[in-house]
Order: sequence, then C-alpha cells, then structure tokens
Amino acid sequence: MPTPIKIAVIGAGSATFSLGLVKDLCLTPNLAGSFVHFMDINEERLPMITKLAQRYSQELGQDLRIESTTDRHEALRDADFVINTADAKGHYHAAAMRDIIAKHGYYYSTGASVPGSYYNFNLMMSVVRDMEEICPDAWLIQSGNPVFSGCTLMTRESDIKIIGLCHGHYGVYGIARTLGLEINSLKDLTWQAPGLNHNVWLTFCYYRGQDMYPMIDEWIETKADEYWRTHVPERTHDIQMSKGAIHQYMMYGLMPIGDTVRSGQSWWYHTDLATKQFWFFDKFGGPDTDIARPQYVKGLEEKLAMIKRLASDPKASVVQELGQEKTREQQVPIIDALVNNVEEQFEVNIPNNGVLAGIPDDVVVEVPAIINKGGVFPMQVEPLPPKVMYEMIYPNWLAMERELLAYKTGDRTQLIWNALQSNKTHSYEQAVALVKDVMGVEGHEEVDEFFKFVNGESAMLMERKLR
Amino acid sequence: MPTPIKIAVIGAGSATFSLGLVKDLCLTPNLAGSFVHFMDINEERLPMITKLAQRYSQELGQDLRIESTTDRHEALRDADFVINTADAKGHYHAAAMRDIIAKHGYYYSTGASVPGSYYNFNLMMSVVRDMEEICPDAWLIQSGNPVFSGCTLMTRESDIKIIGLCHGHYGVYGIARTLGLEINSLKDLTWQAPGLNHNVWLTFCYYRGQDMYPMIDEWIETKADEYWRTHVPERTHDIQMSKGAIHQYMMYGLMPIGDTVRSGQSWWYHTDLATKQFWFFDKFGGPDTDIARPQYVKGLEEKLAMIKRLASDPKASVVQELGQEKTREQQVPIIDALVNNVEEQFEVNIPNNGVLAGIPDDVVVEVPAIINKGGVFPMQVEPLPPKVMYEMIYPNWLAMERELLAYKTGDRTQLIWNALQSNKTHSYEQAVALVKDVMGVEGHEEVDEFFKFVNGESAMLMERKLR
Repeated sequence: MPTPIKIAVIGAGSATFSLGLVKDLCLTPNLAGSFVHFMDINEERLPMITKLAQRYSQELGQDLRIESTTDRHEALRDADFVINTADAKGHYHAAAMRDIIAKHGYYYSTGASVPGSYYNFNLMMSVVRDMEEICPDAWLIQSGNPVFSGCTLMTRESDIKIIGLCHGHYGVYGIARTLGLEINSLKDLTWQAPGLNHNVWLTFCYYRGQDMYPMIDEWIETKADEYWRTHVPERTHDIQMSKGAIHQYMMYGLMPIGDTVRSGQSWWYHTDLATKQFWFFDKFGGPDTDIARPQYVKGLEEKLAMIKRLASDPKASVVQELGQEKTREQQVPIIDALVNNVEEQFEVNIPNNGVLAGIPDDVVVEVPAIINKGGVFPMQVEPLPPKVMYEMIYPNWLAMERELLAYKTGDRTQLIWNALQSNKTHSYEQAVALVKDVMGVEGHEEVDEFFKFVNGESAMLMERKLR
Repeated sequence: MPTPIKIAVIGAGSATFSLGLVKDLCLTPNLAGSFVHFMDINEERLPMITKLAQRYSQELGQDLRIESTTDRHEALRDADFVINTADAKGHYHAAAMRDIIAKHGYYYSTGASVPGSYYNFNLMMSVVRDMEEICPDAWLIQSGNPVFSGCTLMTRESDIKIIGLCHGHYGVYGIARTLGLEINSLKDLTWQAPGLNHNVWLTFCYYRGQDMYPMIDEWIETKADEYWRTHVPERTHDIQMSKGAIHQYMMYGLMPIGDTVRSGQSWWYHTDLATKQFWFFDKFGGPDTDIARPQYVKGLEEKLAMIKRLASDPKASVVQELGQEKTREQQVPIIDALVNNVEEQFEVNIPNNGVLAGIPDDVVVEVPAIINKGGVFPMQVEPLPPKVMYEMIYPNWLAMERELLAYKTGDRTQLIWNALQSNKTHSYEQAVALVKDVMGVEGHEEVDEFFKFVNGESAMLMERKLR
C-alpha cells in the first residue's frame, strides 16, 4: 500500500496547472489516497477549479482528497510537498508594464523587469519562511518564474529542500520532430542540455543511439530553407527550429533549447516586430510580440471559459473534456520518485555544487538529475564550451546577482544601471525616466518606497544639481 | 658596491618613456654601472634617443652604459630586466580606426578594438617566448597596453616573472590637490585602490592620518559646483574630479581612480562630444574626443621636435632641457627594490592568487604590493563592494576572457558578438558591417585571415542565405 501524502499547491488558481496536476495524480496509482490542498488568493476561480478537480478524480473512481483554502498556513500544515506556481502580479500587470516601457522606446524588452521580480521574490521568500515554521521537512517544488534568480535566492536564504522546474528542455523533442524522427517515448532521445534556466545548451543528443547533430546539420543544408518558408506555427512558442535558433547554433556551436531561443540576452533578434518575424516566423514573431501575446492571453481566456462552462454543468464529464493523458509536467513523477522510489532522470534547477564547471556552488543551475527515494542526485555534466560560458552563461549569472543584490540593498542606482544595460537605451536620461515611470505604475508603491538612492546624494539629485 | 645590471627596453623609440627611464636611472646612484639596451624597429628615432640618453648620463657624470639595437634577441641577451613599452600599431593607426568606426555610428567607442589587441598580443607573446629562450630568469616589466588582458595572457602562457605597470593610480593625488591638500610626498596619502587595470576603486584614503572621504563629501557639497563651472583643464586626462567622476562615486559608493573615470563600460558618459563635455569639462571632454586627441598627438609631436632640435645641437645641455627631477614612473624604483633591497610599496598588475576576493587566481589584478630583494608581495586587500564587483569588475573580467578566447580560437562570430555588446549597436547588420570594414583596413590582412567562421556554416553566410 502506498503511503498517502499531502501536496500543497500555492497559486492553484491557474486552471491549466492545477487540473493538469490532478490528472497526473489520478493517473499515478502509486499516489492514491493523497491529499491535494489548493491555495490561492483568487476567491472566484479557486472553488471552481477545486470542484472540477474533485469531479475528475471521482469520475475516474480515484481516491484523492482535494480541498481548497485561501489561507496559506492551512495549506502548508502537514504538507509533504509544496508546489509554488504563483505569480505575484500576473499577465495583465505584465501587459501594462510593456505599454509603459514601450513609450520609452523598449519593445518587449527586459531591463525594466526589476519591480516584477521584487514582488515575486517577496512571495517566494514568504512561502519558504512559512515552510520553515509549518512544514520544515517538506520539499518545495518551485514552478513559477523567475526560477533561476528565485531558486538561487531561496536556496541561499533557507535550508528548505527546493527543486525548480521549467518546461523549456522539451524543446529537444521539438528538434527531433522537425527532423522527421519518430518519437514514441522520451527515451528515444538521450541528451543533455545543462546551463541556467532559460539558458540551456544541447551538449549532446542521440536519437535511438545515433548522434542527432549531423542530422541537424543535414536538415539545415537540405530542408531548412523550405521549412522556414512554409512553416506556420500553431503555438506562439513554436520557435525551436526557427532561423533565430539555427543562427544561434551557428554562433555558439550548440543548439539553444526551449526558452533559450528567445532569450533577451540576444537582443538583436528582438529589436522590433519585423526583425522578430524574420527570425521567429511571420505569424507571431515568437512569443514576445504584440501579435503573439494576445493569442496567448486568448488561450488562457478560452481555457477559463471552458472551465466555467464545465463548472456550471454538473452533468458534463470532466474526464471527457480533459482527457486521460498525463501532462509532460515533472511535478508528479518527481513526487512519485521521492515517495515511492520510482527512479527517473529529470531536468531540475538546483544549487550547482560543482555539477556545472565554472559556476559558483551557490548558483542554481539547470541540469539532469536522477531522483529516487534517496533524494535528488544531479549528474555531473560536461563543461559548456568557453564561448557559451563567456557570452551567454556568465553574463546571465551576473545579471541574476545584480537582481538579487538590488533586492537586498534597495539601491535605486542599480535599477538605473540595469536599464542602462539595455541596447535600446541611448542615454542616461532615458534610463532615469524609464525607472521613474515604471516606479510610478499603480501597484508599485511598495517597490517605489523600497528603492532609494543609498550613496549619499543620489544620482538623480546629482543629475538635477548638475544640469 | 652595487651590482651592475642589464635592462632591455623593447619599444624604446618612445622619447618620453626612454629619456624618463634614463633620468630615473641617472638619479638612482644604486644603479650606477648598469647597461641599458634600447631596442626598437624605428630606425629613425632610436639612434637619436639613444644619443640624447648618453649625453644626459655623461653631462651628469653618471656611469651608465647605453646602447641601441634593432635586434630584439641582442637586446634580451643577458638582460636582468626587460621593459616592454611597445605598441604594435600606434597612435596613427588608432586614429584611422576611429575614423572607420565613426562611419558606422560609433564615436570614440570600444567594441571594435579586437584587431588592435590581436597585434599587441602577438607582440607580447613573442617577447615572452624570446625571453624564455634567451633570458628566462629576467623580470618582464610590461609597460604598454593592454596591461590587463596582455598580462593575464602572458602569465597564463609563460613562467616568466611579469609585473604590469600603469600610471592611473596617481589620480588619488589629483583628488587631494583639488581638495586643496598639500602634498609634499607620496606618503602624505595612505590609500588603496584595488581592481583591474583601468578599473580601480578607492576603498580608503587617509591624508596624514585623516579620512579623506568626508573631505570629498564636503567638497562636493560646498565647492564642486564652482569648480565644475570654472576649472579649465590643461591636460586632456585631467578628469579625476569631473562631474563624471563624482557621478560614478554617487553610483558606486567609491571614487573611481585614474583611467577608471573614462572607462568605456560606463558608455552613457561618452555617447557624443556634447555629453562628454558635460561630464568631463568643456575644453576637451576628457581624453577621448576629436578635440582632445589632436592635442595629445600635438604634445607627442612637440616632444619629438624638441628631441630633434636637441639632437642636432651637440652643444646644448640635455640635462638643462630635461631637468633633474625623477619621473613618477615605477620601473626604476621597482628595479632598485628587487636588485638593491630598497623596499617600497607599489601599485602593480599581477595574477590575483587570492588577493582580491571573488576574482579567479589566474586573472591579473591591480593591487598594492611590497617589493624588496625577496620579490613581489601583493597585499591582501579588502574586498570591493558587491555593487562594484557585479557592475564594474566582473563584466570587465568577462570582456577580457572573451578577448583572450577570440585570440585563441580565431572565431569571427566573437568579434561580431563583441560589436553587438556596444550600446551604439542597434542591429545585427550594423555589427556585421562594422567588423567587415574594420577587417578591411590596410594592415589588418593578418587578422582578417585569422578570424574565421568556425561553427560550420558562418553567421554571415547564414545571414545571406536567409535574407
């Protein structure tokens, strides 16, 4: 008989994630009898999603206890696993932010993201502090962004056991499918793509034992042109074999995987919509454009409408609507591995501790790990080539350290300095004006208060005094 | 009786440097009897400078043997010290390069500097390789740029004992003088400014035992405005107390010293002439403008004219013209310390080996060191604040590593990537065009041949194929 466990889900108001989790649990007999405690501050969606999850479980005749609460402490009580998928501000805030920064000359650009991270860092830290009090032995599976900086922050500040997860690494299967390779199981590919979250590079890949890189090279030679001319992406994120991805392969010598392809570090693919469309297909120009984001939000809204329709129709079959296929999410298989010793290899974000050469021990890296009842055992990976390290990994590491330092010190000149790093910033004044406007956004009162000029007289006062 | 030594000077055609060296030697009785071997490939200036050096020594009745050669091997034979002050390409090439990059939208900007470093790296490495053969026990005192990347390269590749030198740290005395403090001796200030060459930060400074930072703060409060309004620099490099320097103090919490003030990393002070004039005084806008450089070159030409006049007038007194004051250069006092145990504290560039926290051991740092007959003993310095490390030191370290990696691999996409890092680059095409034009400059044939597209099909071919 399996041991029943308790899983707390923070930010359970995300329909896609929460219903996917319940599906995976229902389809994992090992975890029968478990207690899933959904927690969210959204009082509209939470009961609806909880009810649907209960119906899904009941229709399948599964023994799963599903409850909801708006009290985080209650959710954490006796938890064995805490899944944090919450986003402090959400998609609509992100859209408002993009409008503000666009006025200053930044098109879907980073550099103004600090306030967003500030609120998510506060949220993440409050979850781990609560866990230290209430369920200090539970595992935290961090499933909301920013995974890289957030997991580094939490693992430096707390002894809670933390695993950060992302989907990006599945991009490697996207490569294989585009090459025309048949994928019946994840095991058809043997591969590694170590790095930092959203910055991982395919060091090797074998398709049923055959090196896939020569197949990629041949595809580029013989089929890429036609693919780029004719492929019409269905999903905004379908850019794994775009010109932009292959161009990065040409520059760095390794394929960028998943979100790596759209990294803002390579700003030159992202200067404007036309440039993005050139590199990431005409239809959306990748996921970060003003024609792609509405599509993404529309998807979320359609999902929500479907949920509402199901919820208002108690006779409808939830199983029929959601299907009986497991998602590709790693949370449930990881829990199954830790609880029931169903050993597997996963792609996880954990403190480096010597796994990826050249990166400090206390920086969270994305690496393959074997997980079983004994715990999480990262695999020592081959070092990334120096060019990838010096051009893509180390600069990303530094940006993360600056983000954490700013969060710690509240030094406003760091926000200005960050804005100055954007290739769309053309003057000091532009950066100062950007930070000022971003701080003035409704809902940013706390962060505006937090970030001060700490070195005596301020850079901005200085500026005014000088002119 | 002092032991006579042999000093080889590579690049001795620099009048200022070579005559200064001879002055310092003549005014250091400990080094009487020494043999100075001037080497340069410039056959016009070399004999003239050598002759003047000999006359200076003779007029003072000093026992100094001074000879010249265009054969580096001959100069190195039996050398105890090798001073390398050579620049592979020189000021006129740098000016031509600035014209080229200006056409692409870069005003006195970096990012296109790689070919220059390539030739200097070749020169530096050929000197150390020759030294390994001819005078393996000699000290190399590297006195030509780039000190940071060049010394890191050489100390990684060779066991030759190397010290890199610069003048920038004397900027700290410029601060004191502007504050109105009387400086009778270098010992009037007790200070440290560790970091990387051209990137050093004043961690503390005491004027005759009194903390100088509160004096700086008071000066900013009460006198800076008037100073900025009325000060007219005589020298283009006189920017130690400019608005730009003080603004950096406001951003980073420590005073930037010497060339640090004009660092291209802080690009926003350097976008155009008017901006430079605002931050670095109206007259020149700092040393890196089209109104400052001619002044600098004019100074060099006047010096050369003076040299020629003296050389053609065998009855003139060279001592009267050059004076009898020691220069501020550290080469001769360092030699005196190593040979005759005249122990002093110097500012040197040497491999870190744990002296500056957070920097790898094999990266050359600029730090204070005690030098005596036993050798060079760097002083463990206080760590630089995280903000200075993450915003100024680490990014500079990465840029250096990329420069060395490009020199090693000959990967052309690295040059394009570097150009893409400039805040004056607005598109991928602009960077490609810049690199192409820079490589096409006369005299760049070797470097153009060296840098290839190494990852299969090239980024540029890719580009053409795609468009």
